[in-house]
Amino acid sequence: MNNFIENCRERFEKVNSVLCLGLDPVIEKFPIKNDGIEKTIVGYFTELISNFHGKILAVKPNMAFYEQYGIEGYSALKKVVELAANYGLPVILDAKRGDIGNTSLAYARACFDELKADAVTLSPYLGEDSLSPFFGYKDKGFFVLDRTSNKGSSDFQLLKTENGGYLYSHVTEKIVEWNKKYSEGIGAVAGATHIEEFGNIAGTFSENGFLPILIPGVGTQGGDLGSVVSKLKNMNYPLYKIFINSSSKIIFAHNEHGDMKYIDAVEYEINKMQL
Amino acid sequence: MNNFIENCRERFEKVNSVLCLGLDPVIEKFPIKNDGIEKTIVGYFTELISNFHGKILAVKPNMAFYEQYGIEGYSALKKVVELAANYGLPVILDAKRGDIGNTSLAYARACFDELKADAVTLSPYLGEDSLSPFFGYKDKGFFVLDRTSNKGSSDFQLLKTENGGYLYSHVTEKIVEWNKKYSEGIGAVAGATHIEEFGNIAGTFSENGFLPILIPGVGTQGGDLGSVVSKLKNMNYPLYKIFINSSSKIIFAHNEHGDMKYIDAVEYEINKMQL
Repeated sequence: MNNFIENCRERFEKVNSVLCLGLDPVIEKFPIKNDGIEKTIVGYFTELISNFHGKILAVKPNMAFYEQYGIEGYSALKKVVELAANYGLPVILDAKRGDIGNTSLAYARACFDELKADAVTLSPYLGEDSLSPFFGYKDKGFFVLDRTSNKGSSDFQLLKTENGGYLYSHVTEKIVEWNKKYSEGIGAVAGATHIEEFGNIAGTFSENGFLPILIPGVGTQGGDLGSVVSKLKNMNYPLYKIFINSSSKIIFAHNEHGDMKYIDAVEYEINKMQL
Repeated sequence: MNNFIENCRERFEKVNSVLCLGLDPVIEKFPIKNDGIEKTIVGYFTELISNFHGKILAVKPNMAFYEQYGIEGYSALKKVVELAANYGLPVILDAKRGDIGNTSLAYARACFDELKADAVTLSPYLGEDSLSPFFGYKDKGFFVLDRTSNKGSSDFQLLKTENGGYLYSHVTEKIVEWNKKYSEGIGAVAGATHIEEFGNIAGTFSENGFLPILIPGVGTQGGDLGSVVSKLKNMNYPLYKIFINSSSKIIFAHNEHGDMKYIDAVEYEINKMQL
């Protein structure tokens, strides 16, 4: 079995949670600060992970939020990945990378050899040979953008194709094909805000061995945990292959709950995301 | 006029070249080495730029090749951008980024505020609202992936849509729309290996005020400079909006010309890319 999937299976048995915690630093919004950018980011996330790792299946740092802080941000990202690993938390690096052949291999090295991530998000626009260098890391996880949660996602993902499908449904089929060809760690990013199309993707995946699905858009973007999970349970989807991401709603919870201590506000929101 | 385009126009008048030099470090292939990764990268590229800036329109570092070297690579990238700026060379950061709203804004900050690039490549899969935070930097250049030069690009880019077009032709139309709506710095990445589809894109752009085009795939990937340039001249395309990229063919020229000094091998290949 694929290493990433296996680790998630074991972890799910321990924590009984599908929560993927998005670790996306915007330090102006942090409740506690240290000297300098790196220490501020690592300090706050250490607080969160040391307190709540028992309620989390995986973490997902999005590279953009680290890159915006330059070298200090990059250095913080490396430490956040180490921190998560120390608590046995699989790290899904939200990178949305994809480039031609040897360039994708360089990105794969950056994500897996340098940053030591366990899984990565990928963008499909350039096609199979832009992603296969990533898939060569057979023990890792891969979430290919399929039907995303943002408004503009309809611009191309919902283009109707000649044969009656949509662009996103072609991507779904390709993901299934790649999963069989390269690694069972390959799955999709499918937003919870489009519940019908989400159901189509999960339906196709359920007929092909239950591919992993990363689900953003629960929480801030309006998706609903209960309806997503019950849909998946009806398909007998193994929940250790499901990663329901929530980021700002949790890590900046104190901004919505001014009456609570920040750590209690975070716990309150984390509890809402439990099964 | 858009600042990036204006700078390129002035530079083109000076150097009469459409060569965009890809600065993509693979240090095992470098002819000269220094102590450490950062000094090796910056040292060799300083050599190339100080010698040949007069024959180059712009440079294009691809982030993947720097990210694979971790913090040292990131630091080298920052210095390579500064180096190019010191010689008046516009820097197109090949990042292929694209994410949802505030995440894209963080990437835009990383590219423009932190790394000080003049232009960036973007991936369209997530739609307009994933790119508009970049377009808010009105004086920058933007090259959206459209029809790329790699083999697998056909997987999705050539999907036929209901109305008789292709995915890439819809992207072309959207790019034109965004160019009118946000900034005249917005254009496309269109590979020279697919000369017919390249002609379609350039044709559409020529009817809409000549949008900038970044053209990879000349050199190593087999595209032909002469046929691309003559096609564009027939459309009266302003050549300062054309960026014909060549990377490994030039920067690793010594590996193909073992009989020459490395700097002469580079010059030989650069000369082949002149108008």
